[in-house]
Amino acid sequence: MKNRDDECFGDGMDDGLDTDFDFEGNLALFDKAAVFSEIDTTERRSGARSRGTPQDQTPTRYRHDENILEGKPVVYRQIVVPQPGPKEYCTDSGLVVPSISYELHKRLLSAAERYGLTLERRLEMTGVCASQMTLTLLGGPNRFTPKNLHQRPTVALLCGPHVQGAQGISCGRHLANHEVEVILFLPNFVKLLDSWVTLLFSLFISTDLPDTPVDLIINCLDCHENTFLMDQPWYRAAADWANQNRAPVLSLDPPVSGQGHAVEAKWSLSLCLPLPLAEGAGRVYLCDIGIPRQVFQEVGIKYHSPFGCKFVIPLHSA
Amino acid sequence: MKNRDDECFGDGMDDGLDTDFDFEGNLALFDKAAVFSEIDTTERRSGARSRGTPQDQTPTRYRHDENILEGKPVVYRQIVVPQPGPKEYCTDSGLVVPSISYELHKRLLSAAERYGLTLERRLEMTGVCASQMTLTLLGGPNRFTPKNLHQRPTVALLCGPHVQGAQGISCGRHLANHEVEVILFLPNFVKLLDSWVTLLFSLFISTDLPDTPVDLIINCLDCHENTFLMDQPWYRAAADWANQNRAPVLSLDPPVSGQGHAVEAKWSLSLCLPLPLAEGAGRVYLCDIGIPRQVFQEVGIKYHSPFGCKFVIPLHSA
Repeated sequence: MKNRDDECFGDGMDDGLDTDFDFEGNLALFDKAAVFSEIDTTERRSGARSRGTPQDQTPTRYRHDENILEGKPVVYRQIVVPQPGPKEYCTDSGLVVPSISYELHKRLLSAAERYGLTLERRLEMTGVCASQMTLTLLGGPNRFTPKNLHQRPTVALLCGPHVQGAQGISCGRHLANHEVEVILFLPNFVKLLDSWVTLLFSLFISTDLPDTPVDLIINCLDCHENTFLMDQPWYRAAADWANQNRAPVLSLDPPVSGQGHAVEAKWSLSLCLPLPLAEGAGRVYLCDIGIPRQVFQEVGIKYHSPFGCKFVIPLHSA
Repeated sequence: MKNRDDECFGDGMDDGLDTDFDFEGNLALFDKAAVFSEIDTTERRSGARSRGTPQDQTPTRYRHDENILEGKPVVYRQIVVPQPGPKEYCTDSGLVVPSISYELHKRLLSAAERYGLTLERRLEMTGVCASQMTLTLLGGPNRFTPKNLHQRPTVALLCGPHVQGAQGISCGRHLANHEVEVILFLPNFVKLLDSWVTLLFSLFISTDLPDTPVDLIINCLDCHENTFLMDQPWYRAAADWANQNRAPVLSLDPPVSGQGHAVEAKWSLSLCLPLPLAEGAGRVYLCDIGIPRQVFQEVGIKYHSPFGCKFVIPLHSA
């Protein structure tokens, strides 16, 4: 029976299994490097991707969450300015944001004005975005709950007689609408425009500096052009008060470095593109004021928005 | 020696310890309820807080995270209107937001205008806040990253020839600034104001409805007053296109119910105080347009901001 099975199904190979196979000797015969280099050159010639070589392990299978289509390479330098400033910043996602000179900044704003983006619109937009940042700095949703209404935050708003001051007032108006106590300091010679005064009803206007503790100081004392303001007694008094106060300072649209920051800030909010700010400006944030790409092009700036879905973003020194 | 010690230090009481003390008998003698009621009445008379009684267990010790000072009770009905509308909404934190009639809404806006809150300012603010909401609806920070620039979201913006249309265009301008593809549909007889046209450079203006897929439709076709617009052919064509499209619809400043919503919306964004909207308006959101409390007072509304630190909040049917 056994023999007949062997005759039918056997292959006469059983004898060979008795002698041991020489694995080491056979492995030595195989020149791995030569074979792989041959495969490599063949594939390179035919344009196919090399696969599975130890030097270049490209995955041959894609995971369910991987994209088969190759995306465009990410360009991190999306904003190109004609005369790059001395400083460069980058956003959280790595986009490069160059600084620009005050002259270019001024030309940009006047081009925006020609396109219909009036000072009034810009004031409103700056006010909304700056107040959104301030509300976050004051504690955001944790602080502003109905159960917390008995301890409203207090903000001291220091404003000079210029556009920067008007931006501060616009910000203060929105803060007051959101149940923040706003104490607005203005030098006593400032005559407010009619439309401003009527909008200021919710603010507590004072020509004296507050002697009660405040949660935050917003500094809009500085102007980009009239540096002589810094020698005025009201300016010095306000700046000294802010520096001696324990509350943190947010500077709104501060001027470029070199002019000396009388008030040391913890945060600074620059508009549309940053100026090269000094160390005293603290951590720099950038605010979108709604200038379209066409306006940037007019003054020679190649621009793609670095803001993503936000209107205020933090910048880091590159 | 023992006797002399007893004479000096003993108290002659050792004998008493031999008889067992009758605990149960003594406990029965004590009328606990009578004693506590006596303490209770004494404290109530003297105004002191009762403490430790089984009926009224006030904690005598505070945890490290508890507040010793008693807070004011939370008032959830902070907004009181002269003629309450048929609907009431509430915010996430439970604040009641009553609806108002369109007549009161109109008086509110014209009072705001007298206080210097011009249409231009309101358009800018509505545009910023509506675009912030839209950017969130489109995917927010997950969608708007530099690595995702090759798949920009597309928004179809349907605008009629009225203030609501202008609000939509302001929103579209900010969306275009944030790298959203905006296709603006306008009926072909609309002559845009000069300042608008110049601002619209970034938008793709079309008098035809797009036949490519879009991510979101923003509906600004409806006006609060001219309901005769709904019979126009351009209106019907746009409304039919929107209803047949698979993209979700956001209605900006939609009119009150009863006038019929030609376009069914998934979300609606009301301004300052909601009108009583119909079911077809979808989920209702409220947008802050920066009207101060004094203006609300002028038209007889007692107002405290329901917005907290936000500028756009969801409302729920109360």
